[in-house]
Amino acid sequence: MSDPVLVEVLRGTLVESRHRGAVAVVDAGGRTVLGLGDVTLPVFPRSAVKALQALALIETGAADKFGFGDEELALACSSHSGEPGHVVRVQGMLAKAGLDASALACGTHWPASEAAATALARIGEPSALHNNCSGKHAGFLCDACALGADHIGYWKPEHPVQRQVRDTLADVTGATLGDDCRAIDGCSVPTWAIPLQQLAHGFAKFATGHKLSAERARAAVRLRSACAQKPWYVGGTGRFCTDIIQLFGARVFVKTGAEGVYCGAFPEQGFGFAIKCDDGAGRAAQVVVAALVARFLPRSDIERTALARFLRPTLRNWNGFEVGALRPTDAVAAVA
Amino acid sequence: MSDPVLVEVLRGTLVESRHRGAVAVVDAGGRTVLGLGDVTLPVFPRSAVKALQALALIETGAADKFGFGDEELALACSSHSGEPGHVVRVQGMLAKAGLDASALACGTHWPASEAAATALARIGEPSALHNNCSGKHAGFLCDACALGADHIGYWKPEHPVQRQVRDTLADVTGATLGDDCRAIDGCSVPTWAIPLQQLAHGFAKFATGHKLSAERARAAVRLRSACAQKPWYVGGTGRFCTDIIQLFGARVFVKTGAEGVYCGAFPEQGFGFAIKCDDGAGRAAQVVVAALVARFLPRSDIERTALARFLRPTLRNWNGFEVGALRPTDAVAAVA
Repeated sequence: MSDPVLVEVLRGTLVESRHRGAVAVVDAGGRTVLGLGDVTLPVFPRSAVKALQALALIETGAADKFGFGDEELALACSSHSGEPGHVVRVQGMLAKAGLDASALACGTHWPASEAAATALARIGEPSALHNNCSGKHAGFLCDACALGADHIGYWKPEHPVQRQVRDTLADVTGATLGDDCRAIDGCSVPTWAIPLQQLAHGFAKFATGHKLSAERARAAVRLRSACAQKPWYVGGTGRFCTDIIQLFGARVFVKTGAEGVYCGAFPEQGFGFAIKCDDGAGRAAQVVVAALVARFLPRSDIERTALARFLRPTLRNWNGFEVGALRPTDAVAAVA
Repeated sequence: MSDPVLVEVLRGTLVESRHRGAVAVVDAGGRTVLGLGDVTLPVFPRSAVKALQALALIETGAADKFGFGDEELALACSSHSGEPGHVVRVQGMLAKAGLDASALACGTHWPASEAAATALARIGEPSALHNNCSGKHAGFLCDACALGADHIGYWKPEHPVQRQVRDTLADVTGATLGDDCRAIDGCSVPTWAIPLQQLAHGFAKFATGHKLSAERARAAVRLRSACAQKPWYVGGTGRFCTDIIQLFGARVFVKTGAEGVYCGAFPEQGFGFAIKCDDGAGRAAQVVVAALVARFLPRSDIERTALARFLRPTLRNWNGFEVGALRPTDAVAAVA
């Protein structure tokens, strides 16, 4: 059966496009709080699990060894916009491990930020540092150093770093991660397909420490705290993850992944969530995140007002005219 | 009921994302040759009807008055990439009407071509000439001049130019275009929601002249011929519409619109087609166009090979590794 329509795109008064998808909200004990669509189908979480991939950075001792603070830890969890502040800080992470941009295997693309890309075009060309995954990759390189492994090939599935990341993902989500559900991510590291239900459960554990080793639970606290303290490093200027974490602080964790995925948690409620827009549309998955916030997080009047622009984003054309909007359907909408 | 899945996105061996949509292929007599999904739902065709919007450019006498050749006519039908050749030629269209870029009301954005945008960033800022719709807007301005109307406000629904465009769309598609199905396009001109079935029928008439006035049929021939002769002006370097028209010449007409729409025709078969990807994804709508070409157009071995990369496009990551592919589902796939 098909997943339900979660978000509609309006042009004028008519629905122009429709986004279907699935949503799982699960508590730390594994109980499904909300399930929409097929939450048992394996989904590639892509960058939405960077925070779980970054647990190793603390557990290997690399973060302490290299003296990483909140900004570096947030960058390890990030899909950043390639703004100068991100690039300089990733460069600093590499330097602390005695490395430079040439060690990064994530590939090169122009900064996701149009302003940063335009400014960069005026003075040069992008490097691997501008890749939105460079913070995560810098973390992997530091893991390799802390593990005493050769950092060359740190991105390959058989490398000790990726084996540790896989074991961590399997432990936290409870999923079996065999080669049959492995593919290659945009930045060349492995990505494993995991059902939304298990991803959501994993983020509930990440947010509460429930059923995690004491060491892993402490690492999770430290990463969540770093992202809450330095949300700009999780995304960048005007980015959805950054804006939502800025708005709600440690009460929410949220991270985007390519192809319409979001994972996150409401730590105070002890809930984790995972969203997959069937068609891969990030614009719709964001509206679903906002709808979950509206549904599960108590908000002040100020927070309610601030959330409104994410819950029903206005679409404007090149002249700034309001031409439409996105809106969640009743399936996901907050109960007023 | 939900529309069928038309295109799947593979990552490795697993399906990562799915695109649903509707497709109508209709002959000039109005007979449905292929109907998938709901082809009766009104859809905003957006830029996919630029060739119909451009009929007025010939019918008002503007094209002859200003001495427009194939390049200008193709630009009037285009969503161009803002490459230098497009920009210079649009500027020339305006100059022939005694106007310049300041008359364009389409708004400004960076060139859709990354190479053109990067090169432009090094020397300046974009203008309305770089807007992908500037060729269409230059055509509208010339229409206004030929009609003897004030060109100010040429983009408003009540302006004589837009009234003529609406009447032409209604005549060609047979749709009733009331205010209830009108919205504002990305470039600020009106866009009217029309069922796919009627859009496809309209393009069958555009491709054959059937049931059009002799004057309108001649205008259609001239526009189709211009696009077939100068496909680079319909899109740009590496753009789907350009590549497909380059490959099949006058045997196919195809034009993209925002939010996952494509309209086009197979003139030799006398078929028009219209596609709407429910979620607005252009990447999927392109695969559907390729599947229709494979299904309805006789091809040489060379053409068959050339079409393969559009029918099942390979996805590569930032390192150039093959990470997946798009593929049409059996619902639309060509019969081998």
